[in-house]
Amino acid sequence: MALLDDLKWRYATKKMNGQIVPEDKLSYILEAARLAPSSSGLQPYQIFVITNKNLLGKIRVISNDQSQITDCSHLLVFAAWENYSYERMEDVFLRTVRERGLADNAMEAYHRGLWNLYDSLGLKWQSEHSAKQAYIALGLAVAAAAEQKVDATPMEGFDNAKMDEILGLEKLGLKSVAILPIGYRDEGRHWLVNLKKVRTPRERFIIEL
Amino acid sequence: MALLDDLKWRYATKKMNGQIVPEDKLSYILEAARLAPSSSGLQPYQIFVITNKNLLGKIRVISNDQSQITDCSHLLVFAAWENYSYERMEDVFLRTVRERGLADNAMEAYHRGLWNLYDSLGLKWQSEHSAKQAYIALGLAVAAAAEQKVDATPMEGFDNAKMDEILGLEKLGLKSVAILPIGYRDEGRHWLVNLKKVRTPRERFIIEL
Repeated sequence: MALLDDLKWRYATKKMNGQIVPEDKLSYILEAARLAPSSSGLQPYQIFVITNKNLLGKIRVISNDQSQITDCSHLLVFAAWENYSYERMEDVFLRTVRERGLADNAMEAYHRGLWNLYDSLGLKWQSEHSAKQAYIALGLAVAAAAEQKVDATPMEGFDNAKMDEILGLEKLGLKSVAILPIGYRDEGRHWLVNLKKVRTPRERFIIEL
Repeated sequence: MALLDDLKWRYATKKMNGQIVPEDKLSYILEAARLAPSSSGLQPYQIFVITNKNLLGKIRVISNDQSQITDCSHLLVFAAWENYSYERMEDVFLRTVRERGLADNAMEAYHRGLWNLYDSLGLKWQSEHSAKQAYIALGLAVAAAAEQKVDATPMEGFDNAKMDEILGLEKLGLKSVAILPIGYRDEGRHWLVNLKKVRTPRERFIIEL
C-alpha cells in the first residue's frame, strides 16, 4: 500500500488490545528508524524497546496513566544524546570511512570543523539539536508501522526526568525525548477511531513562492 | 515498493540535475507532510514551496553556497510557529470539532489545560517544541519523496535568521527550521551516490529491556 494510504489509515491509538506485534514487523519498524537521515549522519539517538511488564507499569505511572503504555505490544523510547562530543563524532565518522573503504583520516577535517561549530553553539543547543534528529526517526517509525498495519502512537506526555531515571539514561549520556507504543487498536473500545482525521487545510499549510 | 527499500534507495543528494518534479509527485510529498502526526494535532508549522529563481539564488548564498538549492526542482522550507498562543490553539481545535460534527465547546477544557501548560513552559520551550513537530513532517516528506523516486536532501546548514528575513517569516509568527530541496540526482557528477550507506549497527542502536 502507498504511504499516503498508510498515513490516512493510522491514527493516535489511545486504546490498544494487548495483541503482540510479530518479531519481523517490529524489526521492520526499528529498521526504518535506523535508516532515517540525520544531520551529518550522526544519528545522535538510540531506541529502547521495552516489553518488561514491571518497567511498563512504572512508565505508565509517569505518563499520565495512559493505558496504551501497558496495553501496547512494545514500547519504543527514543533517547537522544544529552550532548555531542568530539569522541562521539569520531566514533561515527571513523566507522563511516572504514565501512566505505576510505582512509581513516578521510573525514578528519570535516569532523574537526563540525565539532568546533557544535562546541561553540553550546550544550543547550546540542541537546535540542539531537532531539530534533530523533523526531525524523520517530516519523519514519510511524510510517513503517502504518505500512505494516501496526498501530503506533507518538507521545510526549510523560515525565522526562523520571523516565531518564527509570531507564538509567543519564549514565549513558542520553535523555528521553519521545515514546512510541506500538500494538493493535481496540476498535470496539476506542471513540477516536471513528472520528474524522483533521489536518490544516492544504491552502493554509502550503505557501508557494 | 516498500518503505525500507525506499529508504535504502535514497541518500543525501548534493548534486541535482535541474529536472523538474511533476506536479502530482510534488503534491504527494506535501500531502505526506500534511498528514504527519503532531503533538495534540496542532501542526505548528507550514511549508514554503519555492521555485522563484531569484529567491533560490538568495537562499543559496545563505546556505553555504550549496548547489542543490538552485539545482533542485522545488525547495521546501519547513517553518515552525515561533510560539504557541491561545488563539492559535483555538483555531485548530475549533476547526477540529467542527469538521467532526461536535459541539464548539467539545475541546474547550482540553484547550485551556494545554494552553496553561504551554504558557507555563515559556517561549523558548514553545519554539523548540514546534520545531520538533516539524521534523516529524520532514521525515515523512523524505519517505514520500523516496517512494516517488524523487531525491530529497534534508538540510539545516543555512543561516536561519537570514532565511526568516528573506521569506518574511517573522511577521507571520514563523521561523525556519529545516529545508528540503527535492529533485533528481545527477548520477554522473556525484561521488556520494556510490558510497555505502552507513548507519549505527543495529546492536548498538536498539536496547531491549
